[in-house]
Amino acid sequence: MEYTIQTSVSSDFDHVVETTIDELKYDGFGVLCDIDVWATFEEKLGEEFRQYRILGACNPGLTHEGLSEEIELGALLPYTVIVYETHDGEITVSAVDPQQLVGIADNEALDSIANEVHDRFERVLASVADKLESSTEI
Amino acid sequence: MEYTIQTSVSSDFDHVVETTIDELKYDGFGVLCDIDVWATFEEKLGEEFRQYRILGACNPGLTHEGLSEEIELGALLPYTVIVYETHDGEITVSAVDPQQLVGIADNEALDSIANEVHDRFERVLASVADKLESSTEI
Repeated sequence: MEYTIQTSVSSDFDHVVETTIDELKYDGFGVLCDIDVWATFEEKLGEEFRQYRILGACNPGLTHEGLSEEIELGALLPYTVIVYETHDGEITVSAVDPQQLVGIADNEALDSIANEVHDRFERVLASVADKLESSTEI
Repeated sequence: MEYTIQTSVSSDFDHVVETTIDELKYDGFGVLCDIDVWATFEEKLGEEFRQYRILGACNPGLTHEGLSEEIELGALLPYTVIVYETHDGEITVSAVDPQQLVGIADNEALDSIANEVHDRFERVLASVADKLESSTEI
């Protein structure tokens, strides 16, 4: 089952991460969690891994609305956006599909929130692709 | 649908959060994310909310195993454990059910990892309940 929405770009990894964070903030998300998987595996396991970051994003207003409706919803938050190197040298930015994720709760009152986060994530991914494509053209 | 496993204790909120973090670490989880929902709502929305923390936990070895099997799995991580005040004055500690969460991916190769995280979360919750119950009895 598809549980993410994604885009891939040809750019520097750190630049993609920074652009993704900037676009998330621009679309009203706080980035409340930033896990450097590569560094963690290096430190904890002594294992080489591809560049991989896990960003946790939440919009305060939508989160307040969601928790007021269902207090346990926090167990599915924050919404995660991952950035990683692919084997063909591109960088993929992939956001969890909020409709699939929040669908676990099986609460119709949360549908509009999941739809709104989904729409915002689509805009974020489109903006990341747009900005990084533009910058490589310059 | 039930998508969390939980316990409730009668104790000081901050003490429950600290105990939960300690027990997660004891069972091999790094706590890579710690969101103070109460403070965030106060700062961003000027709204009073109950005490509510969102902790993001990952075990490095199990995460490595999972990402090696399915690179997109990171979009469902970290596993979230929430701690919040209930209306009757207790504190609930609630972990996302990893079997429900990872079930979104519909990949049988991830089942054993989800089962392992589930078992560890059950031990963590039992330990939190045990320690805080013991401490109130002393």
